[in-house]
Amino acid sequence: MPTKNNKNSFSLKDLADKIGGTVDGDGSLVINSAAPIDIASSGDITFIANEKYLKHLASTNASAVILDDKIEASNLSIIRHKNPYLAFALVLDILYPELPDVATGIAPSAILEDATAIDSSARVGALCHIRSGAKIGKETRLVSSVFIGKNVEIGDNCILYPGVRIMDGCTLGNNVSIHSSTVIGSDGFGYAESDTGLKKIKQIGNVIIEDHVEIGANCTIDRGALGPTQIGIGTKIDNLVQIAHNVQIGRHSIIVAQVGISGSTKIGNGVILAGQVGVAGHIEIGDGVMAGGQAGVTKSVKAGTKVFGTPARELMKSKRIEAILSRLPDMYKRLKKLEEEK
Amino acid sequence: MPTKNNKNSFSLKDLADKIGGTVDGDGSLVINSAAPIDIASSGDITFIANEKYLKHLASTNASAVILDDKIEASNLSIIRHKNPYLAFALVLDILYPELPDVATGIAPSAILEDATAIDSSARVGALCHIRSGAKIGKETRLVSSVFIGKNVEIGDNCILYPGVRIMDGCTLGNNVSIHSSTVIGSDGFGYAESDTGLKKIKQIGNVIIEDHVEIGANCTIDRGALGPTQIGIGTKIDNLVQIAHNVQIGRHSIIVAQVGISGSTKIGNGVILAGQVGVAGHIEIGDGVMAGGQAGVTKSVKAGTKVFGTPARELMKSKRIEAILSRLPDMYKRLKKLEEEK
Amino acid sequence: MPTKNNKNSFSLKDLADKIGGTVDGDGSLVINSAAPIDIASSGDITFIANEKYLKHLASTNASAVILDDKIEASNLSIIRHKNPYLAFALVLDILYPELPDVATGIAPSAILEDATAIDSSARVGALCHIRSGAKIGKETRLVSSVFIGKNVEIGDNCILYPGVRIMDGCTLGNNVSIHSSTVIGSDGFGYAESDTGLKKIKQIGNVIIEDHVEIGANCTIDRGALGPTQIGIGTKIDNLVQIAHNVQIGRHSIIVAQVGISGSTKIGNGVILAGQVGVAGHIEIGDGVMAGGQAGVTKSVKAGTKVFGTPARELMKSKRIEAILSRLPDMYKRLKKLEEEK
Repeated sequence: MPTKNNKNSFSLKDLADKIGGTVDGDGSLVINSAAPIDIASSGDITFIANEKYLKHLASTNASAVILDDKIEASNLSIIRHKNPYLAFALVLDILYPELPDVATGIAPSAILEDATAIDSSARVGALCHIRSGAKIGKETRLVSSVFIGKNVEIGDNCILYPGVRIMDGCTLGNNVSIHSSTVIGSDGFGYAESDTGLKKIKQIGNVIIEDHVEIGANCTIDRGALGPTQIGIGTKIDNLVQIAHNVQIGRHSIIVAQVGISGSTKIGNGVILAGQVGVAGHIEIGDGVMAGGQAGVTKSVKAGTKVFGTPARELMKSKRIEAILSRLPDMYKRLKKLEEEK
Repeated sequence: MPTKNNKNSFSLKDLADKIGGTVDGDGSLVINSAAPIDIASSGDITFIANEKYLKHLASTNASAVILDDKIEASNLSIIRHKNPYLAFALVLDILYPELPDVATGIAPSAILEDATAIDSSARVGALCHIRSGAKIGKETRLVSSVFIGKNVEIGDNCILYPGVRIMDGCTLGNNVSIHSSTVIGSDGFGYAESDTGLKKIKQIGNVIIEDHVEIGANCTIDRGALGPTQIGIGTKIDNLVQIAHNVQIGRHSIIVAQVGISGSTKIGNGVILAGQVGVAGHIEIGDGVMAGGQAGVTKSVKAGTKVFGTPARELMKSKRIEAILSRLPDMYKRLKKLEEEK
Repeated sequence: MPTKNNKNSFSLKDLADKIGGTVDGDGSLVINSAAPIDIASSGDITFIANEKYLKHLASTNASAVILDDKIEASNLSIIRHKNPYLAFALVLDILYPELPDVATGIAPSAILEDATAIDSSARVGALCHIRSGAKIGKETRLVSSVFIGKNVEIGDNCILYPGVRIMDGCTLGNNVSIHSSTVIGSDGFGYAESDTGLKKIKQIGNVIIEDHVEIGANCTIDRGALGPTQIGIGTKIDNLVQIAHNVQIGRHSIIVAQVGISGSTKIGNGVILAGQVGVAGHIEIGDGVMAGGQAGVTKSVKAGTKVFGTPARELMKSKRIEAILSRLPDMYKRLKKLEEEK
């Protein structure tokens, strides 16, 4: 969706009013699109997400920028907002209000089994397969080739992108978005040893996804062995994330791409797991914990702690070790010198 | 599949008899479902998978529990079994005997090309696509939107979940289960340098999956460059695992989620690779090797060895280094002190 | 595709001529297939990709082998070529010229929306879904169940394997291959904090894939937040790779399986990121950089540098630290001894 094709336009004043900001400059400017600061042109509104981009502020061709009260930009009209990033998110929703396009009703090529309960306002795209007993709520959109298993319950205003598979018995709340080819409710990985090899432990639990959760593409969230695997309200999960059986994730947590969380682990509220983090099974990660990229979290972590490395250590401890690691060859030489001199 | 909807029920004595255990308590108790010990209620049978859950034994509301001879639980009826976890697996199969539901025969929306050989007892679900020359064995189930490439051979009693893709020429034995969106037989990653860029090495091998293998969701198992990529009998593979071209995995090995195995590496029998392990190419991992989570295995590993870390080191060596790493800042101070005092 | 079923055959002299090599031995030998050196038999041509396989040269049953001028093999007929691996790639294309088989035209089960522009020589397989405004170039093949979003543009001679999803507005150049279940143009992972939780930043950019790019199975390449995510000419990407929004990758780079690249990072030309590497956001990786397996690249890296470890360090520095880490327990003892002796 090239930003320049946008047909919506607003005055800067209009935009500011709608998002609770104030104009500093020419409120009559017409804004019809948004662009990154370094490539923006006339008609664009832009913002600064990372201080590395401050250098572009003087030279940008954008018509306007969203800033907090501290940053000056005399060459541009400004929307002032205490949270510029949030303000920009709100502006994007105003300029680009479209949802993924799916025709109303149920596509002729979709396969519906008996006894489904699909709200009349839901939209089911081409080549979807909805099994018996499934319920789909108001205004929910299945874009294409979505699989909905038996007795699955999906709430209102959900968006399921092409190739999403929701396996039997799982439930999604309202306003849940799931990106392409993600699998919800695959079997957990459990086997008992026996004389003839590994005996599968039948996985009879399900997955419960609460309201306002977003899950990226090609993720796997396994059903619980006996009870549920559960993702709490507002939690956001990036691509290629693995969530094993019986995991419980709290509210408003952020799970970045390629993270893996092992079975039965509990993740608190407001937790941030950076990319490629691995978390061991049967442990508890407290509220507000932050784990740095590729950390290997092998033990429970108390609320509010920042951890890094494998095995994961508390931030300051990890930094101290890291700093000295660089001096290790030097330390070795100095140790040798001391031995020789003694 | 909420456990409480189960319609099957058995007396505790019946269950014990069927799995080769003995009753310690009231054999007439009616059991109709299974549940985790901390949320079980009347009618449930439960078990203890991890000693962390022993604390729930006194307070559980389950009707019965499966235990070995060593653990006491005077408040509950017990099935005694020398391998409680295996016993629980067997009980689950009795209480929940259902396979993934697929209607008999071939769904009208499935696309079958010429010259396929699909056993009359096989079940092909909606929107599957089976290409010419493919063979599908007895009682095998393709749940939905499964792709079976040209000349693929699939044995008996296999289960292929929605969105599985088996590319041309690959073969699956009997009793193989593959979870959603896993790709078997994608091209291996091989290129030769040339003056005009990277020249693809055409990948003309295939993938051979032996009997009783289970593969999780969203995995990728590449076809061999020239010969096969092969997964041995009874090996179990979790989600999001990458297996490169020409890899050979032995029997009864366990490959946990997000592991990556590079090209032409041989993995023995009974190997356990924990989550997010990476294994270099063209090496051999002996029988019974265990690699800890996130290990980076860069060299061949002898049978029976446990390795940890990146680059992977033998367990005891790795532990010793790890222990001293925590003292590294202290070591540095002590070294400095010695230098100052000399 | 078992190599032995091949129907094409050529004399060794023919093959040598076609690829710019010379025959050393019997040019009239008939070659009809290619095989790994250790399992090759009569009629096969083989090669040596890795010096570990040199030991098989004396005992192979292959009819011929491709070698450079330095290696002798008196028992075999030889094609001499200055770049044997490239020569082997060229021979494979001659012996096995087939592309993935898709019937000409548009399969009856494919769903085409209005106003698509599909070249008459393109081939659209079963159960594909092509949305309005999409363009598909000459000789491009969509094997099965491929999703092409609105206004997507796909060039000539592309191959999209089963289950590939190209989301709205993304563009692919010519000669692009994408393997099964890969998602191009899923939403980038961007949220702003708000009083009520994490507010999604609408992702309105797209993905631009240039000519001669190959992308493996089950990858995720997110659309840019505002502008494009871009993959340069000739770059090759393995399976299960995550490329976040706004990432720019240059030409002829190699991204091995399970790599993750965070948002807005720039990767140069001719870069090699080995398996499971993680790259932080908003940094620059210069031309020709090589990152070892599982490296965690947290800072920008200058052109031509080799880095290893987490956090990634320059190769020699990393090796020195690594070497001394093994002696760390010994160092600790020696330090203690010095203290006791002083």
